[in-house]
Amino acid sequence: MGEFELIDDLLKRISYMGSNVLVSGGDDAAVIRNGERYTVVTTDALVEGTHYRSSWKKKVDNLYTYIGRKLLSISLSDLASMGGFPNFAVVNLGLRKDYSLKDVEGIYDGLSSCASEYRVSVVGGDTVRAPSEFLTLSLTGSSSGFMLRRNASPGDLIAVTGSLGDAKVGLEVLEGRMEVEDEGYFIERFLNPIPRVEEGIYLLNSGVRCCTDVSDGFLFNLSTITRSSGLRAEIFSERVPISERLERVPDAFEFALYGGEDYELLFTFPERLMDRFERNGFEVVGVLKAGEGIFIDGEPVQVRGFDHFKEE
Amino acid sequence: MGEFELIDDLLKRISYMGSNVLVSGGDDAAVIRNGERYTVVTTDALVEGTHYRSSWKKKVDNLYTYIGRKLLSISLSDLASMGGFPNFAVVNLGLRKDYSLKDVEGIYDGLSSCASEYRVSVVGGDTVRAPSEFLTLSLTGSSSGFMLRRNASPGDLIAVTGSLGDAKVGLEVLEGRMEVEDEGYFIERFLNPIPRVEEGIYLLNSGVRCCTDVSDGFLFNLSTITRSSGLRAEIFSERVPISERLERVPDAFEFALYGGEDYELLFTFPERLMDRFERNGFEVVGVLKAGEGIFIDGEPVQVRGFDHFKEE
Repeated sequence: MGEFELIDDLLKRISYMGSNVLVSGGDDAAVIRNGERYTVVTTDALVEGTHYRSSWKKKVDNLYTYIGRKLLSISLSDLASMGGFPNFAVVNLGLRKDYSLKDVEGIYDGLSSCASEYRVSVVGGDTVRAPSEFLTLSLTGSSSGFMLRRNASPGDLIAVTGSLGDAKVGLEVLEGRMEVEDEGYFIERFLNPIPRVEEGIYLLNSGVRCCTDVSDGFLFNLSTITRSSGLRAEIFSERVPISERLERVPDAFEFALYGGEDYELLFTFPERLMDRFERNGFEVVGVLKAGEGIFIDGEPVQVRGFDHFKEE
Repeated sequence: MGEFELIDDLLKRISYMGSNVLVSGGDDAAVIRNGERYTVVTTDALVEGTHYRSSWKKKVDNLYTYIGRKLLSISLSDLASMGGFPNFAVVNLGLRKDYSLKDVEGIYDGLSSCASEYRVSVVGGDTVRAPSEFLTLSLTGSSSGFMLRRNASPGDLIAVTGSLGDAKVGLEVLEGRMEVEDEGYFIERFLNPIPRVEEGIYLLNSGVRCCTDVSDGFLFNLSTITRSSGLRAEIFSERVPISERLERVPDAFEFALYGGEDYELLFTFPERLMDRFERNGFEVVGVLKAGEGIFIDGEPVQVRGFDHFKEE
């Protein structure tokens, strides 16, 4: 069973749910009514051996500062995909008996730099001894509305911020499975994703109501929109945004479609909104229609992501 | 370095803090101003091999249901010690490749039963693959005020709810280090602590302003009050509440003083408040005076807790 099905099945076992809870599970974050506004909550984990390796220290100076930043960035990305404004976070660190104080301080320095940039108050934490190292973070924000995967409509345009695929190349380089030019660029893209917080708020304020983030691969995350909205996606291959550096890498298009860890926003909107966007930090890559599945240049494609629970 | 000093040192590395954050670190939970009320936030972890063992399944039916309940109960206890009313929680599970679906469902069933009793909405979660099993939970609540460890005053009476020491006996039994009569009772006290949520709210509403919970041992947690308030505690040994069953166990008093995991509320208040308490679900065990240290029947005592980071 994959991670996605597992957590949704588990949440079904929860019998009590307050009437102020509008979204719980099945999207990037939970949404709770809070007076005239909404509270948005999300949580994420980074686990040594699953999401990063301590041994990457040989290739990356200040690895743990990156890990600390990324811990917060990935939750900020979930928040961004709902259109939320960040507020406060709490952190749990599971540390081995032989933990390095320097590494742990690096985590907090990374957390602190990201928290300052996005004005998140890291209000508390807990450290526990553990057989293997892990970090978890829960983030709370607020919003004037929210964007959901299931809110797409037939005729909506499909768009994505930034460019896709670089991060996965960075992971392959760190894992020693690939050699590329400019490897520092790709590693940076993997370790230091930019959460699109400002963009998410802008999209929500512009009238966008369907959004998610590209954490598990563009096609996989797109399929969470098509499946929950009951629609078919038609993607135009030449519109899929790929960085100049990635274009020089073999299988660049595959990386863009399936890579994951991009943390770009993937959203849909009715064409009439185009006139309302004052800026254009995104690429329209396709359109939604009645039906099901995902098609690229008219050909159906199989969707797969990299799901930490699937056998590799 | 112990867990307590480590986390406080780490939080000092966080440079940004919103002006609405009133308490961050150094107490049982964080407090954030939210209009006329306060948002209270806390987070906790349970780690296999540190806080529980999968092998206890041999001794305990539905072990993982207990673990799920306890995960929420210990955060509810932190919230209770601030006087907070629970609202919503998010959960992270780190699961081994060979995880048992039945165990994971047990965790959620335990979470669900506890969440229903205390009306907590478990709004989201994440599951990740990990080399060793862990659970983390973050809980948000609200309150009309808050109780802090540093709020004690000279002359305050020291009181504690329930009774102390049973839980640690339960742990010793589970670990096979002790044999006692009624072992099921003690195991239940360890695995299924009762968070004193209602009592915490009652204390806050009655005017109590200094409270913590007994998670690391009565004397240890008392020392967090005396140190942060700059006071001396005088404890009367015959007033320390010990259950009838614990009285029949060797070293009962030691268990009560040092045991930990009781999750009772430990609080202080000026004597004049005694008239305002309509019920008396607590025991006055001592008094605070100018000075420092903890004295039992006039004799100074060394404080130690069981800190997961200390060498055993």
